[in-house]
Amino acid sequence: MSMKPRIYLDFNATAPVTPAVRSAVIAALDRLGGNPSSIHAEGRASRDLVERARDAVARIVGRPREQVVFTSGGTEANHLGVASQAALVELAGGPRVVATTAIEHPSLAGAVDGLVARGWERRLITGAVDLTGVGLLAVGAVNHEIGTRFDLAVLRSASAAGVRIHLDAVQAAGKVPLTELVADSMAISAHKLGGTPGTGALVVSEGADAALPMIEAGHQERGRRGGTENVLGIVAFGAAADVDPGGWVQVAACGDRLEAGLVALGARIHGAEVPRVGGTVNAAFAGVRGESLVIALDLAGVAVSTGAACTSGTVQPSRVVGALFGEVAAREAVRFSLGRSTTPDQVQAVLALLPAIIERARMGTASRR
Amino acid sequence: MSMKPRIYLDFNATAPVTPAVRSAVIAALDRLGGNPSSIHAEGRASRDLVERARDAVARIVGRPREQVVFTSGGTEANHLGVASQAALVELAGGPRVVATTAIEHPSLAGAVDGLVARGWERRLITGAVDLTGVGLLAVGAVNHEIGTRFDLAVLRSASAAGVRIHLDAVQAAGKVPLTELVADSMAISAHKLGGTPGTGALVVSEGADAALPMIEAGHQERGRRGGTENVLGIVAFGAAADVDPGGWVQVAACGDRLEAGLVALGARIHGAEVPRVGGTVNAAFAGVRGESLVIALDLAGVAVSTGAACTSGTVQPSRVVGALFGEVAAREAVRFSLGRSTTPDQVQAVLALLPAIIERARMGTASRR
Repeated sequence: MSMKPRIYLDFNATAPVTPAVRSAVIAALDRLGGNPSSIHAEGRASRDLVERARDAVARIVGRPREQVVFTSGGTEANHLGVASQAALVELAGGPRVVATTAIEHPSLAGAVDGLVARGWERRLITGAVDLTGVGLLAVGAVNHEIGTRFDLAVLRSASAAGVRIHLDAVQAAGKVPLTELVADSMAISAHKLGGTPGTGALVVSEGADAALPMIEAGHQERGRRGGTENVLGIVAFGAAADVDPGGWVQVAACGDRLEAGLVALGARIHGAEVPRVGGTVNAAFAGVRGESLVIALDLAGVAVSTGAACTSGTVQPSRVVGALFGEVAAREAVRFSLGRSTTPDQVQAVLALLPAIIERARMGTASRR
Repeated sequence: MSMKPRIYLDFNATAPVTPAVRSAVIAALDRLGGNPSSIHAEGRASRDLVERARDAVARIVGRPREQVVFTSGGTEANHLGVASQAALVELAGGPRVVATTAIEHPSLAGAVDGLVARGWERRLITGAVDLTGVGLLAVGAVNHEIGTRFDLAVLRSASAAGVRIHLDAVQAAGKVPLTELVADSMAISAHKLGGTPGTGALVVSEGADAALPMIEAGHQERGRRGGTENVLGIVAFGAAADVDPGGWVQVAACGDRLEAGLVALGARIHGAEVPRVGGTVNAAFAGVRGESLVIALDLAGVAVSTGAACTSGTVQPSRVVGALFGEVAAREAVRFSLGRSTTPDQVQAVLALLPAIIERARMGTASRR
C-alpha cells in the first residue's frame, strides 16, 4: 500500500476544506448557541455568525448583503433563481421562452426542465446567440466539466434587451471576478470554494425579491427561504468566500502546465478552442475509457473524475463532452480540476504516472473487446 | 455584567451542540475529502461519513436505512413529506382532504397551505376526530410550543382506515420512541437533538418512494432529494441521533419540578389538561407580557422564548396558545423547554430569579398603560 500523499485534482466536484474554513468551523462550534431567529443572547450569537458570513459572501459577489439568500446549496439556488426570474417574466407579461445551452450542470438543466413542464419553450443556444423573443437567459458562467466561459458580451446585450438573466456562477466563484458578471440572480456554492457541502446562496437583485417564490414556509432569510439557517455551513461559506479571484492566475498556470504535458502525451483537450477559466483540463486519450483512467489514477493515489458526478460507484460518461463532441469523446473524457492548494510538483507527478497508466488502460480496453 | 454561567431553556428552538456532536464534527473535518458522489478514495470517505450517519438516524426511527432521505432541515422534510403523501393519495384516487390541527409548526402548516392552494380541503381537527372522507392526516407528534402529544390511537385508526399519514416528529425525536409512531412519512431535524441547524431527514416508507416528488434535480439520496449532501451537518445529525429516548424521563422530571414551582408562583400552565411529553412547560402569569419576561430573563442570564421563533429581534405572540386559549393567553405565554443537559440546580435558580422579574414586568406593563 502506497504511503505517498494523495494528489487531489477534482476541485470542481468538491474543493477540500481550507485551513481557514476548518478553523472557522471549530471556533463556531463553541459560539453556536441558539436558534439564529431567537432574540436571547444565544440566538443573537448564532445570528451574528450568519450575518458575518453574509457580509463575506456579499463581498465576493460585489452586491449588497440584502441580496444574499442562503440555500442548501447550488442546486437549490439554481432552482430558486430560475423559478423566481421566470415568475418575474410572467408577471411582466414577457415571452415564456428560456434560452440555455446543452452543457449546463444538471441542477440548472433540471430547473429549466421545470419551466418546460409548465409550458415554457426551451431555446438551445448554438453558435450565434439570437435573443429575440427570449424572456429568460439561464446559463452557467463557467462550465463545470470543461471550464469554458460564457460570453460576457452576450450577458450584457441580453440585459440591455430586457431579457432576465439567471447565472449559475458555482464554478465561476473564486476564479473570475463575480462583480463583472451581469445577472438578475446568481447561484453560488460553498463547497466549490473550500467550504462544506450543503450550503449555497442565491444572489438576487432587489427588484426580484417581491416575486421570489417561497419554496418553503418560514420567515427566515427575509421570507425568501424558510427553515432554520445552516449556521455552521454558512460560517464555512463565509470563511471560504474570503478569497481573491486574482489569485486564480497561479492555478490557471498550473493547469496550463498540466495541459501541455497531457498534449505531449497525445491527449485531445475538450474546449481548447474557446475561452476558458483555467485550472480545469478536460482531456481524452484515443481508445482509452475515461472511467478506466479515473479508477487507475485513484489506485495510484490521484483523484480525478470523468466530469460527471456519479451514484454509488458507477461512472457515467460526460454529458457535456457528449453534447459537444459526441459519444466516443464522452466515454474517453477525463476531467482534471485544480485548486489553490495544487502545486506544480503535483502536476509533474501526475504527468509522470500517466504514460504507464494509459498504456495499461489501452491494453485493458483491447483485451475486453 | 454578570459572570454567572447562563441557563439555556430554549431547547425546542435549538438544542445546543452536544460534546459528542462537537467531537464528531471536528473528526469529520479531517476526513471530509471529496464529493460523496465521487468514486475516488476522497469521495468514498465522504460517502462513508454520510452512510454511517444514515445508520444512526435509521436506528432512532427504527426503520430500514433506505427509508432515510436527508434534507436541509425539518421544514423541507415536512414539505417533501406532505407533498409526497398527497401525491400518493391523488395517484390512488383518494379524497383530496387533509386533516390537521390549528397548532402545527409553521413549516407543516405551510406545507398544508400548499395543498389547499392546489384545491385540497383542509379539515381542522377539534375534539373528537372524524376521519371519514380524509385522504391525508398531517400532524405533529409532539407540539413544539406546549409539548402535547398527538393521540397514538388516532394514528393507528387512521392507518387502519387507509388514511395516509405524514407526521412532524421534529419535537418527538429523542423524547418518545419514534418506533411507536405510525406514519407513512415522518420529518425529523438534527438541531432539535443537539446536532447543527440546517439538516433534517424525511423518513418515508418503501411504497412512497415512487411518488416522492423531486423538489430538485439530481441523483443524490436515491433520486429523492437532489444536491450534494450536507456531509458535516449529516455527521452531526448521526452523532446527535445516537440517543436513548428512555433517558428523557429525567428531563421530564426536571420539567415537572419547574412546572410545580411556576404554579406555586401563580402561573397558569397551557396544555396541562392533556398528555404531554414532559420537559416543555408553557406558562403564563396574569397581566405579564411573555415578551417582557423573555427579555428580562435574558438579561438575567436565562434563555427562554415566547414559543414562536422571531425575526430580527421582534417577538410574536404564541400562535399555538392563541389558537387554543385566546389572544390574552398568547401574549402572556412563555415557553421553558428543557434538554438533557438541564440540571435541577438550573431549575431552582430560574425559580429563584422569577418573583422579582415577574414583579418588575407587571409594573412595566402597568406604567405603559
